[in-house]
Amino acid sequence: MKNYKIAVLAGDGIGPEVMVQALKVLDVVSAKFNFSMQSTEALIGGAAIDATGVALPEATLDLCKSSDAILFGSVGGPKWTSLPPAQQPERASLLPLRKTFDLFCNLRPGQIYPAFAELSPLHPKISSQGMDILCVRELTGGIYFGEKGRTEDAAFDTQKYSVSEIERISRVAFEAATKRRNKVTSIDKANVLATSVLWREVVERVAKDYPQVQLEHMYIDNAAMQLIRAPQHFDVLLCDNLFGDILSDEIAAIAGSLGLLPSASLNGSNFGLYEPAGGTAPDIAGKGIANPIAQILSAALMLRYSFAEEAAARAIEQAVASTLEQGIVTRDINSASNYGTADVGAAVIAAL
Amino acid sequence: MKNYKIAVLAGDGIGPEVMVQALKVLDVVSAKFNFSMQSTEALIGGAAIDATGVALPEATLDLCKSSDAILFGSVGGPKWTSLPPAQQPERASLLPLRKTFDLFCNLRPGQIYPAFAELSPLHPKISSQGMDILCVRELTGGIYFGEKGRTEDAAFDTQKYSVSEIERISRVAFEAATKRRNKVTSIDKANVLATSVLWREVVERVAKDYPQVQLEHMYIDNAAMQLIRAPQHFDVLLCDNLFGDILSDEIAAIAGSLGLLPSASLNGSNFGLYEPAGGTAPDIAGKGIANPIAQILSAALMLRYSFAEEAAARAIEQAVASTLEQGIVTRDINSASNYGTADVGAAVIAAL
Ligand SMILES: CC(C)[C@H](C(=O)O)[C@@H](O)C(=O)O
Ligand SMILES: CC(C)[C@H](C(=O)O)[C@@H](O)C(=O)O
Repeated sequence: MKNYKIAVLAGDGIGPEVMVQALKVLDVVSAKFNFSMQSTEALIGGAAIDATGVALPEATLDLCKSSDAILFGSVGGPKWTSLPPAQQPERASLLPLRKTFDLFCNLRPGQIYPAFAELSPLHPKISSQGMDILCVRELTGGIYFGEKGRTEDAAFDTQKYSVSEIERISRVAFEAATKRRNKVTSIDKANVLATSVLWREVVERVAKDYPQVQLEHMYIDNAAMQLIRAPQHFDVLLCDNLFGDILSDEIAAIAGSLGLLPSASLNGSNFGLYEPAGGTAPDIAGKGIANPIAQILSAALMLRYSFAEEAAARAIEQAVASTLEQGIVTRDINSASNYGTADVGAAVIAAL
Repeated sequence: MKNYKIAVLAGDGIGPEVMVQALKVLDVVSAKFNFSMQSTEALIGGAAIDATGVALPEATLDLCKSSDAILFGSVGGPKWTSLPPAQQPERASLLPLRKTFDLFCNLRPGQIYPAFAELSPLHPKISSQGMDILCVRELTGGIYFGEKGRTEDAAFDTQKYSVSEIERISRVAFEAATKRRNKVTSIDKANVLATSVLWREVVERVAKDYPQVQLEHMYIDNAAMQLIRAPQHFDVLLCDNLFGDILSDEIAAIAGSLGLLPSASLNGSNFGLYEPAGGTAPDIAGKGIANPIAQILSAALMLRYSFAEEAAARAIEQAVASTLEQGIVTRDINSASNYGTADVGAAVIAAL
C-alpha cells in the first residue's frame, strides 16, 4: 500500500480548525482508495514566531524536506502586523518555502459557482455570465527574487526573467488549457517592460507546440479592467509573479467566495504546497464557523498533483459539490446558515 | 485679458470628434469668464505615425514646449497594434511627453455617479454603497523608467525610487485628501519590494505634516481585492507608477462609465497634460456617437490646474452635471439614448 508523508502546517487564525476537517477527509478517502498517509504537524507563521522567534523554523523546514507534500493552512494576523513587512508571518513563511522547493508554478482556480453566483460582488449583472478561470502564476522569479537594495535616499528592485523560467511556466499554462477551453491569455506590460517583451516572445514560441490552443496577449492594466467587465472571457490566465499576485486576488474578489478557493504551488516533480486562497480570518478564528472547503479542496489538489491519486481527488471534489448543493455551507456563503466548520466537514465525509 | 496657449493633440479614433466638443465648450467658457485661449492642433499617435513615421513628431513636441498646457485626446487603434509594443502609439506618445515635461503626478478621479450607478458592473450590490476615489499615481519613475536590458536568454527591468520622488507625489495625495474626506490609502508591496519599504517610510514622514489626514497602507494584491469588495472604503489612493496604472484602470472598470472619467498629469508648476481615461474606441469612431464628457471634463481640469480658472472649471463641471441629470447622454451611458456627441456637447454649452 502506498504511503504518503505530509507536512501539515496549519498556522494561525482559522488555519488549525479548517485543517482538522481536511485531515479527517483525507483519513476517510485514503482508507477508501487504499493508500495511507503519514501526516506530521509543525509550527509555521505567527505561531512559530511566538514559539521560536522565526516564522519558518529549521525543524519545520526539515520536516518539509522529508515529506512528499506540504498541506498549508494560513498564517498571519493582527498580533504580527507591527513587525517589519519582511518579517511578517505570511511573507517569511511562504517566500522561503517557495524558493527552497523551487515551487515555480502557482495554480489558482477562480470560479463563480452558478449556485452561489449571488456571492459575487458582480451579481447579477456580470455573475450571470459565469466565470471559470485558472490563474497560472510564475512563483519563484521576477521582481520578488531579483536583486534589491537601499541607500540613504533611494531604493531599487530588479525584475529578471530568463527564457527557461518563462518557458516552464508557459508550458504549464498551455497544458492546462488543453484540458479546459483551449485558451490562454498571457498578461504582460510589453509596452513598457523589457521582461515583458521577452515574456511575449517565449510564450509565442511555446504556443507553437499547442496549435489547438488560442493565445492572446493582454496588458496588465487592461486585464485588471476586463476581468471586471467580462470575466467569462478568460480561461487560463498566464502571469508573472507580481501580475499573478495581483490578478489572482482580483479574481478571488470577483468570485466572492474566498472560502471555496484552493491553490497549488508546484515544482514540476511531484512535490507541492497546497493552501486555501483566503487568509487567517482572525475575526472568526476559534468560533467554529470558518469555512473548511478551501482547505479540503487544497487537500484534493494535493492528491491529484503530488500523489497522482486522481480518483480520490475527484471523490473529494464531488463530495464537496454535493455538500454545497445540499446547502450545507458556513455563514460566509449563506448568512442565514447555522452550519459550522465541523458540520460542513462531516457533510463532505458523509457524501464521500 | 489673460491668454492661454493650448497644444491640442486630438489623436486617433474618437479623439478628434470629442475634442471638437471640448474646444467649443472652452470657447464659450472663455468668453464668459474673460480669458482667451489660443489653441493649436498637432499630430500625435497613430495619425502622426501615418503622416511622419513617428508617434510624437518634433513639431508636436515643439508646440507643446511653447504652450501652457496640452489637451490630449486619445491615441492608438487596430491599425497599429502589429507594431512592436514599444512603438505603439499610446506608449510612444505618452511616455516621452511625461518625461519631457516631468509630469510626475497623475490624477484620476473614479466615481460611481448615483444617477448612473447601474452602469457599474458591481450594480446593485456594491454600487449602492457608492464610490468616489481619487487615484494619485506617480508617473515619471519606478519600473517604467529604470534601467532595462536584454541578453539572448534573459531580460531585466529596474524599479527605482528616490526619497524626493516619493515625497513630492505623497504631498499631492495628502493635499488632495484635505480637500476631500481626509483619508489616504497608500499602496505598496512592502513585504516583498525594497522600493515599497522606502515608499512606506517616506509616506509616513509626509503624513506627519497632515495630522488631520488618516493614513493607511495596503498591499497591492489586497487593494485589487478590496476595491471590488468595498470601493466606498477608499478616498485618496496613493500609488507608484505601475500599481497606479493597474488600479486606476480597475477603478474605471468598477465605475463602469469610462466615457465620463477625465485625468490630469501635472508637474507641480502650472503645466499639465489632460486626457480622458478611456481609449480611442475604434469601433464607434466617426459615427458621431462617442461620449464627449470625459474630454470636456479634462478641459475643466486644465482650467483648474494649469490656469487657476477655478470658477470656469466649476462652471463646466456643473454644466456637465446638469446635462447628465437631464438624461442627455450618449449610448454608452444609456443604451436607449438617441443623443449623439454633438447633442451632448450642445447641451453642456446650453447649461453653461
Ligand atoms: C505573502 C506574500 C509575499 C504573498 C505573495 O505576494 O506572493 C501572498 O500575497 C501570496 O499571494 O501568496
Ligand atoms: C500606454 C501606457 C504606456 C500607459 C501607461 O502604462 O502608463 C497607459 O496605460 C496609461 O495608463 O496611461
